[in-house]
Amino acid sequence: RVGCVLSLHHFQFLVTKLGEDWIFLVLLGISMALVSWSMDYASAKSLQAYKWLYGELSWNVPLQYLVWVTYPMILIMFASLFCHLVAPQAIGSGIPELKTILRGVVLKEYLTLKAFAAKVVGLTAGLGSGMPVGKEGPFVHIASICAAVLSKVMTFFSGVYQSPYCYTDILTVGCAVGVGCCFGTPLGGVLFSIEVTSTYFAVRNYWRGYFAATFSAFIFRVLSVFNKDAVTITALFRTKFRMDFPFDLQELPAFAIIGISCGFLGAFFVYLNRQVVLFMRKPNALTRFLTRHRLIFPAVVTFVVTTLTFPPGFGQFMAGELMPREAINSLFDNFTWTKIWGSASPPGLGRSSAWFHPDVNVFIVLLLFFIMKFWMSAVSTTMPIPSGAFMPVFVLGASFGRLVGEIMAALFPHGILFDGILYQIIPGGYAVIGAAALTGAVTHTVSTAVICFELTGQISHILPMMVAVILANMVAQGLQPSLYDSIIQVKKLPYLPELGFGHISQYNIFVEDIMVRKVKFLCSQSTYRELLYLLDSTSLKTIPLVDSKGEMLVFTFLLHLHKIISWYCLKQIKSWEEAEMDKPLELDQIRIDPSPFQLVERTSLHKTHTLFSLLGLSQAYVTSIGKLVGVVALKELQKAIEGSTRSGVRLRPPLASFRDTIRKSSKPSKTSPAPSSPELLE
Amino acid sequence: RVGCVLSLHHFQFLVTKLGEDWIFLVLLGISMALVSWSMDYASAKSLQAYKWLYGELSWNVPLQYLVWVTYPMILIMFASLFCHLVAPQAIGSGIPELKTILRGVVLKEYLTLKAFAAKVVGLTAGLGSGMPVGKEGPFVHIASICAAVLSKVMTFFSGVYQSPYCYTDILTVGCAVGVGCCFGTPLGGVLFSIEVTSTYFAVRNYWRGYFAATFSAFIFRVLSVFNKDAVTITALFRTKFRMDFPFDLQELPAFAIIGISCGFLGAFFVYLNRQVVLFMRKPNALTRFLTRHRLIFPAVVTFVVTTLTFPPGFGQFMAGELMPREAINSLFDNFTWTKIWGSASPPGLGRSSAWFHPDVNVFIVLLLFFIMKFWMSAVSTTMPIPSGAFMPVFVLGASFGRLVGEIMAALFPHGILFDGILYQIIPGGYAVIGAAALTGAVTHTVSTAVICFELTGQISHILPMMVAVILANMVAQGLQPSLYDSIIQVKKLPYLPELGFGHISQYNIFVEDIMVRKVKFLCSQSTYRELLYLLDSTSLKTIPLVDSKGEMLVFTFLLHLHKIISWYCLKQIKSWEEAEMDKPLELDQIRIDPSPFQLVERTSLHKTHTLFSLLGLSQAYVTSIGKLVGVVALKELQKAIEGSTRSGVRLRPPLASFRDTIRKSSKPSKTSPAPSSPELLE
Repeated sequence: RVGCVLSLHHFQFLVTKLGEDWIFLVLLGISMALVSWSMDYASAKSLQAYKWLYGELSWNVPLQYLVWVTYPMILIMFASLFCHLVAPQAIGSGIPELKTILRGVVLKEYLTLKAFAAKVVGLTAGLGSGMPVGKEGPFVHIASICAAVLSKVMTFFSGVYQSPYCYTDILTVGCAVGVGCCFGTPLGGVLFSIEVTSTYFAVRNYWRGYFAATFSAFIFRVLSVFNKDAVTITALFRTKFRMDFPFDLQELPAFAIIGISCGFLGAFFVYLNRQVVLFMRKPNALTRFLTRHRLIFPAVVTFVVTTLTFPPGFGQFMAGELMPREAINSLFDNFTWTKIWGSASPPGLGRSSAWFHPDVNVFIVLLLFFIMKFWMSAVSTTMPIPSGAFMPVFVLGASFGRLVGEIMAALFPHGILFDGILYQIIPGGYAVIGAAALTGAVTHTVSTAVICFELTGQISHILPMMVAVILANMVAQGLQPSLYDSIIQVKKLPYLPELGFGHISQYNIFVEDIMVRKVKFLCSQSTYRELLYLLDSTSLKTIPLVDSKGEMLVFTFLLHLHKIISWYCLKQIKSWEEAEMDKPLELDQIRIDPSPFQLVERTSLHKTHTLFSLLGLSQAYVTSIGKLVGVVALKELQKAIEGSTRSGVRLRPPLASFRDTIRKSSKPSKTSPAPSSPELLE
Repeated sequence: RVGCVLSLHHFQFLVTKLGEDWIFLVLLGISMALVSWSMDYASAKSLQAYKWLYGELSWNVPLQYLVWVTYPMILIMFASLFCHLVAPQAIGSGIPELKTILRGVVLKEYLTLKAFAAKVVGLTAGLGSGMPVGKEGPFVHIASICAAVLSKVMTFFSGVYQSPYCYTDILTVGCAVGVGCCFGTPLGGVLFSIEVTSTYFAVRNYWRGYFAATFSAFIFRVLSVFNKDAVTITALFRTKFRMDFPFDLQELPAFAIIGISCGFLGAFFVYLNRQVVLFMRKPNALTRFLTRHRLIFPAVVTFVVTTLTFPPGFGQFMAGELMPREAINSLFDNFTWTKIWGSASPPGLGRSSAWFHPDVNVFIVLLLFFIMKFWMSAVSTTMPIPSGAFMPVFVLGASFGRLVGEIMAALFPHGILFDGILYQIIPGGYAVIGAAALTGAVTHTVSTAVICFELTGQISHILPMMVAVILANMVAQGLQPSLYDSIIQVKKLPYLPELGFGHISQYNIFVEDIMVRKVKFLCSQSTYRELLYLLDSTSLKTIPLVDSKGEMLVFTFLLHLHKIISWYCLKQIKSWEEAEMDKPLELDQIRIDPSPFQLVERTSLHKTHTLFSLLGLSQAYVTSIGKLVGVVALKELQKAIEGSTRSGVRLRPPLASFRDTIRKSSKPSKTSPAPSSPELLE
C-alpha cells in the first residue's frame, strides 16, 4: 500500500518533470536537428546522383541535356503533386502565414501533421532538384508545426500548454529553432525569426529560443561530424579571409554602394515576385488552363531554367553547373578571379573553376549569372512547391557583391596603400557583404548580418557589413514592403500595418473616431429568432452579450458562434414549431469569455495599436461609462492607420518616414482619419 | 511675397526633416561615440601617467608603493566627492534604475545633465585609477541621459518626442547605444540592453537601436583609427586563434564544466555583492560613521586593494601590475603558459609575462588572481562612485576560463588526437568562453556571447560558448536573481517579478482575487474638504473620478496629485475661511487622463501581468459592468505572483522552474493566491 502510494508519488513527480519547459525545448531541438540533417542528407544525395548521371553521359550531349532537364522536372512535379494531394497549405514559404498566426489569427490546417509531411517531402525533393528554391522559410513552418504538435503531446504532462497565450510562446520558439537549425546559425536564427514574425517580443522567449536553437544547431552540426562531412563543429560556408587587416577605411564607399544597390535590387526582387504571383492570379484563359493542369506551370519553369543553365549550352557563360551551395562556397573563396583568369588555375581552386570561361571575361560571367538567376529565383519561388526565397537571394547577393569586389580588385590591382603597406582587396569579403545586404533588403531585417557571421565563421567584416545591411534596409523599406508582407497582402491574409515612428496624429486620433458604432448584440431576453437573424446578417465569430437592451451595459460576455450554430441546428431538428423561435435563449449553454477586451472612447490610436499588436487581438469593444458604444476590429484599425499615415495600401516599415516626408511636403496634411468602414456589420 | 512663402515652406520642410527619427539616431550615435572615445582616451592617459610614475620610481620601493597607493586613492576619492556634490544619482551602475524607469516608474533626477556630468567625470576618474570598476553599466546610464536630453531638443522640430510612449522608445535606444559604443560592439550591445532592461520589446526599436549603435560603434572605432591606436577597424580585444580546427568535440565536457562552474561563481558573486551592500546599509556605529565621513569607505577599499596588488609585494603572485584591459589582452593570448613557464619567453609575449613568477607555478598565480580579484571586484563595485560590474566580472571569467584551459593543456600536453592528427589545446579559447559564461551568469543574459564575438573578432568558438553561457545561466538563474535585480531589490525600487513559464495557476487566478476593493475616489460633487482628507490619507499620485457617488460608475478620469496640491495650496492662501472648504471642486482645472487602464474582474493573472509589463502600468482600475469595484497596483500583482509561484521574495527568472519543481514536489500545491495587501489605501 505504502509502496503503491510512493510509486504513484514518484510517477507524478516524473510526469511533472517531463512536462518541464526545458524538456520541451530539448525535444524540439533534437527533432528539428534530425529533420534538418536528414533533409540535407537526402537532398545532397539526390544532387550527387544528378551530377553523377550528368557526368556519366558526357559522351553524348543530347542525352546529357535530357538528364539535365528531366531529373529536376520529375522532382519538382513530384513535389508539386505531393503537396497538392496531401496538404496544399505546405506550398510556399510559410513565414507569411506564421506571421499572421502569431498576430492572433487562426489559420486552419496550417499546423497539422499532414502539412508537416507534405512540407518535408516536397522541400527535400525541391532542394534535391538543384533549382533555386530555399530551405529557410519552409523550415520555419516545419519547426512551428513540430512545436505545435509537440506541445499537444506535452499537455499530457502539464496543462500549461493548452493556454492560447502559451501557444504564441511555443510558435515563437518554433520559428527560432527553424531558422537556427536550418543552417546551424542559432543566434542569427533567433534574431531573424523575431524580426520577421513579431511586432512585440517577450524577452523570456528570447531565452527559450536561444536555448532550443543552440541545442538544435549543436546536434545538427554534431551529426555532420559523425557522418564525417566535417572534422569538427565549424561554420557551414567557412571563409578564410585574412584577419590582421580585413579591409581599409578607404574601401567603405564601395561597401556603401553595395548596400544602396542591394536596397534597390531587393525592392525590385519583391516587386518582380509579386508581379508574377499577381499575373498567375489574374483570371484569364491562360491562368484558368494552368489552374486546371497544375503541373504545367512548375514543369515549364523548371524546363526553361534548366535549359538555360545547361552547362554545355548557355550555362557555360553563367556558371550553370554550380548548385546553390557550391555557388556560395565558390563566391566566398579567397582568390581574386580577375588575376587568375586566363592563367593556369592555382591549387585549391575547386569548384570556383566553373566561373572561368576561356573566351568570356569573369565580369561578364558574373553579371550574366546575376541577371539570369535574378529572374529565375523570382519566378521559381512562385512555383506551387514548398520553397523559400532566402537562399536564392543569398546567392544573388553574393554574386553581386563578388562582382563589385572583382571590379574593385581590377581598379586597384596592387591593393590599397595604407601606412606604407599595400593591402590586397578581398573580393570574397565583398561577396559576403553583398549576400547579407541583399537578403536584408528583401526580408527587411538586419539580422541577416548575424546569419552571415555564423555561416562564414568570420566576424572581421562586422562594421562594413552592418553599414551595408542598414543602407540596404533604408532603401528597400522606402520602396517596397518586405517579401513576406508582400505575400501577406497578395494572399489577402489579415494583417496590422506598422505604426510609424514620429506621426503625431497617432496620439490625436482616438478610438471613438474609428470605431463602428452599430454593434449587433444579444441580451438575456433575446429570442432564438433574433439570434437567427443575427447569425444571418453577420460573419463575426463572437457576439457581445449585454445586460439589458435599453441600457446597453456591457455584460462582457461573448458567444462563440460555432457552438451556437450546432446547438441551434439541433434545436431546429427537434422542434419544427415556429413558436419555439420566440423562446428566450438559454445562456448557460453558451461558451462565454468573461473578460473580453474593452477600450474607452478616448484611447489613442497609438495605444489601440499597441494593445492589438501586443495581445494579438482581432477586435475590441469600446465602452463609455460601462455602456457598449462601439467595436473596433483589425480592419478599422488598418484603415485608420493607412489613412493617418497616407501611405496607401502599403505596410509601414520603420523607415517609411523617408517616403512619407516627401509626400507630406507635397500634399497638405489632413488630421481627420479615413472614415470607418460600415461593412463589418451592415 | 511668393519668395517669402516659398522660403517659409522650405524652412518648415527643413524643420520637419531635422525632426526626423534617423537624424536623432545619428546625433545620438555621434555624441555617444565622442563621449566614449574621450573617456577612453582620458582614462588611458591617466593609466599611462600612473604607470610612468610607478616605473620612474623603481629605484625606491617605498616611494613606489606610495605612488601605487596614492594615485588611485586620489582619483577614487575625487570621483566619490564629485558625485556626492554634483549628483548622487550618478553613483553605481545605472542599469537597475533604467530597468525601473523603463518599467514605467518615474525616478526623479535620474536623467538630468547634472547626473550626466557627474557620471562622465566620476567614471573617467574611476577607470583611470586602474581599480576593478566597469564602464558598461554607467555608460548605459550616460547614453540614456544623452538620449533623453537630445529628445527634448528634438521637440523643437517635432512634437512626437513629447509623448510618454515615445519616451520609452528613446530610452531603449539610448541603452542600446550605451552598451554598443562602450566597447564598439553594436550587435551585442543591442541584444544585451534588450535582455537587461526589457520584458516586452518592440521590434521597431530593435531596428532603431541597431542603426544608432552601429553608427556609434563605427564612429568610435574610426576615431581610434584616426588617433593611430589601430590600423583599421578591428575588434577591441582581437584574438588570433587557429580557425581550421578551433576545438575538438572531446573538449566539450571541459566547456560544459566552465559553464556550470561559472553559474555557481556568478550566483556567489551576486550574493557577495549584495551582502556587502546590505552590511553597509545596516544601521550600526560603523556604518553611521562611514555615512558621516563618506570618503573613508572608498579610500579604505582602494588602499586595501592597491596594497594587495602592489607588484613588488603580494602583487607579484597575482599579476597585480596588470590593468583590467591588459589583463584581458594577456588572458586571451595565443600561448600555452604551462609550456613556456620556466623556459625563455617567446617573442610577442608582451604583457603576458606578468603571469610568470620565477618560483610560483602559473596555476597558482591564476588561482590567486581569480580569488583575490573576485572579492575585490565584489567590494569595489559597491563604492559610492559610478561603476559597473560587467568588465571586472569579464576579467574574472577570463581568468577562470584560462585556468581551466591551462589545466586541460597540462592534462593533454600533446593535444587531442582526432583522425590521426594531434590538435593542440588553445587555453585562450577557454578564457574567452569563461569570460562570456561568467558575465552571462552574473547578468542573467545570453547575449554576452555575442559581445565576446565582437570583442575578440572571432566567432569560431560559437557553439561551445553558447553551450557554456546557457549552462551558466541555468545554474545562476536557479540560485540567485541577476546582479541588476539584486540591486533593484536592495534599493527597494518598484519592480514586477517575471511570470514563470508553465504555471497553470497564472491562468486560474483572476484580478478579482488580488485587487484592493476599498478604492478612494472623487466625484463631481466632492468638496475641497473631502479632497483634503483624501490627500492626507493616501499617497497615490492619481485618484479615480467617478460619475455619481451612489452608483460608482467609472467616469474614467484621473487627477494628477501634484497639480491638485499646488492648486489647493494656492486656494488656501487666497481664502482662509472654513466655508470655502465645502465648495465643490472645479474639475476643469484638473489634469485628467481620459483613458485610464481598465480591467474586468475575470482578467487572469497572466493577462494582467502581460498588460502591466507591456504598457508599463503602475496601477489599473477594475470595473464590473462599468462600476468601479477595485484597483490593482504593482504591489498587489507582485505579491500575487510571488504567492502563486511560491518562490518567496526572489525574482522569477525563466529557468526558476528548476527550483520550483523541487519545492512543488515536497510541498502540497495550493491554488489560492496570497491574500492581497490592504495597505495601499488603509
